[in-house]
Amino acid sequence: MIDRTVFAQRREKLRRLMKIKKFDALLISGATNRYYLSGFELHDPQPGESAGCLLITLRHGDWLCTDGRYTDAAARLWDVNKILQYRGNAASEIGALASGLSGVCTVGIETRLVSHDFYLDFEAAAKGCSLERGDYLAEELRLFKDEEEIRLMKASCRLNHEMLAWLPAILQPGRSEAEVAWEIEKYFREHGAEELAFPSIVGVDRNAALPHCIPSHDTVIQEDCMVLTDVGCRLNRYCSDQTRVFWIGDHPSDQYLRTLDAVREAQNRAIQTMHPGMKTSDADAVARKYFAELGLDAHFTHGLGHGVGLETHEPPSLHARNKMTLEPGMIVTVEPGLYFPEWGGIRWEYMVLIREDGVEIL
Amino acid sequence: MIDRTVFAQRREKLRRLMKIKKFDALLISGATNRYYLSGFELHDPQPGESAGCLLITLRHGDWLCTDGRYTDAAARLWDVNKILQYRGNAASEIGALASGLSGVCTVGIETRLVSHDFYLDFEAAAKGCSLERGDYLAEELRLFKDEEEIRLMKASCRLNHEMLAWLPAILQPGRSEAEVAWEIEKYFREHGAEELAFPSIVGVDRNAALPHCIPSHDTVIQEDCMVLTDVGCRLNRYCSDQTRVFWIGDHPSDQYLRTLDAVREAQNRAIQTMHPGMKTSDADAVARKYFAELGLDAHFTHGLGHGVGLETHEPPSLHARNKMTLEPGMIVTVEPGLYFPEWGGIRWEYMVLIREDGVEIL
Repeated sequence: MIDRTVFAQRREKLRRLMKIKKFDALLISGATNRYYLSGFELHDPQPGESAGCLLITLRHGDWLCTDGRYTDAAARLWDVNKILQYRGNAASEIGALASGLSGVCTVGIETRLVSHDFYLDFEAAAKGCSLERGDYLAEELRLFKDEEEIRLMKASCRLNHEMLAWLPAILQPGRSEAEVAWEIEKYFREHGAEELAFPSIVGVDRNAALPHCIPSHDTVIQEDCMVLTDVGCRLNRYCSDQTRVFWIGDHPSDQYLRTLDAVREAQNRAIQTMHPGMKTSDADAVARKYFAELGLDAHFTHGLGHGVGLETHEPPSLHARNKMTLEPGMIVTVEPGLYFPEWGGIRWEYMVLIREDGVEIL
Repeated sequence: MIDRTVFAQRREKLRRLMKIKKFDALLISGATNRYYLSGFELHDPQPGESAGCLLITLRHGDWLCTDGRYTDAAARLWDVNKILQYRGNAASEIGALASGLSGVCTVGIETRLVSHDFYLDFEAAAKGCSLERGDYLAEELRLFKDEEEIRLMKASCRLNHEMLAWLPAILQPGRSEAEVAWEIEKYFREHGAEELAFPSIVGVDRNAALPHCIPSHDTVIQEDCMVLTDVGCRLNRYCSDQTRVFWIGDHPSDQYLRTLDAVREAQNRAIQTMHPGMKTSDADAVARKYFAELGLDAHFTHGLGHGVGLETHEPPSLHARNKMTLEPGMIVTVEPGLYFPEWGGIRWEYMVLIREDGVEIL
């Protein structure tokens, strides 16, 4: 687990970004950003319910704001003099706290992540403060994985590899997609993962072509079929995400082998050319151009990949319209795919760390 | 699973509430409300990402708005002429849709559930529309479980009972809280549940006093200890939620027996007096008053219970400040507890259906 000083260091880095924005304070509302900056509660309890937020200030320290359910958890982690335990309307009570801190004039708000109601209530209570958009400051830091995060990401990805090495024994004719998904989940959990990083995709034949395939009890593995698995675990808070396709039986079809070759080659070309300083859209273009040479680019229906870390989907996105630059410390998926709704689909996904000297497949 | 016509009937009921509010349209953004009214996607993919929303209108039918990942899932459920597949900014594209529908002037928005950014972008695009708070309309319907929902809730609760009947065999000295929690989860999943309704609480001795106890690998069941389990499953989308306390060994302590008696009696008194027309705060007061007679009310540190349905925590809340009225069709938990941080805690939780003629323990 991450040392408490690491969270404090991240808040210092955040303060540098706040100064550039001329924020006296920044309210961190998103659950993932909250955990990243404090170690407090990675998850909110249910939709529309928050476990708490952070008020990061330039000159008044950092406040952890939460409710009575989390009093013990907060006290184990935070200076109790800097815990605001709200009892009624969280937004109003935190707004009043900000308003009462001398010299706090400009407050950044994660307008992408707070509800409209919360914003209005906070604004009404934060008398004397002017609110500014404070989105993507924490995400800016999260783009770059530090050494400890890289270690944890590698561990999460390693467990994913171990599961994938074990998985063929499970992919037997007669097993349904849902049964396979449950075996995968049990493997992850019984080898240390807290949970899945996202609901597993297990798709047989035509289901492999669905971008949002829910493993079915009715679709069963047959002799001579393809099975696509897109799965990940969360281990020590960090997500892994890998896709493989398996042929069940000894006689993979020509289309399967041909499509698999094309996808693997597109992936290989993209990874070979990826380097610090490259535009993310250019990484996507390498795979897309190769598919175009084969006349198959219409069947590559999504972007090349995405950042991964505390969440499965993080910036930077690797797609045609994103002009971000790959930089050392980023971890992204590279997952070209080709889909034929009447037949099936093939996707192959690696996680890749951008390093000073190139890339490393995790 | 729920018949598609049921979702359409719920939207008709919602339209009646919209007419009272003089809304021409209502944007449903919350994931649970979306599922309740459409059958489309109970969960959003990850924090800050939406699977879609509904634009319910008085005179232009109902639109399902989603992105390309869900094209297949949407088409299986919805008239394809009423699906808006957004490609860029969802809020702007849905706002433009609303703006283009003739006679749509007043649009209700779930301001509690949409982000501030979404609200601003929607507002900017929904030219000619005035936005109003549209919170709690869908929740108002969800308060009252229909026959099919009651059947599903009973099935979810029955699986919970079956697990609890099996659980004592698992609660053996040497097993950690985390191991027990995993055995519980496996039982639910292997008997049909999609997932847990919420992260299981399994607390040994002093951990039983923590309101937010995360099952630990380090805390192990001993001979002669108490174990509190507060667990629920989601079966066919509906949640169950029950708490029990077990004594491990043959010699329960006097304090354990005395505290258990007090909690069970408080629960019994509350349930005996609950009836349609009663204020929810009065139900809470029955249990609290009994604890006060014993001089223990300071140790009852939370409300008596809460509604449960598609989410674990729904209205109505049964606590001292909530003046809602119990009505037939509501399903609420009744879960008094007494906590002694240096010793442990006891909570006992049933799910109770309010009926015309009284209450029914599920």
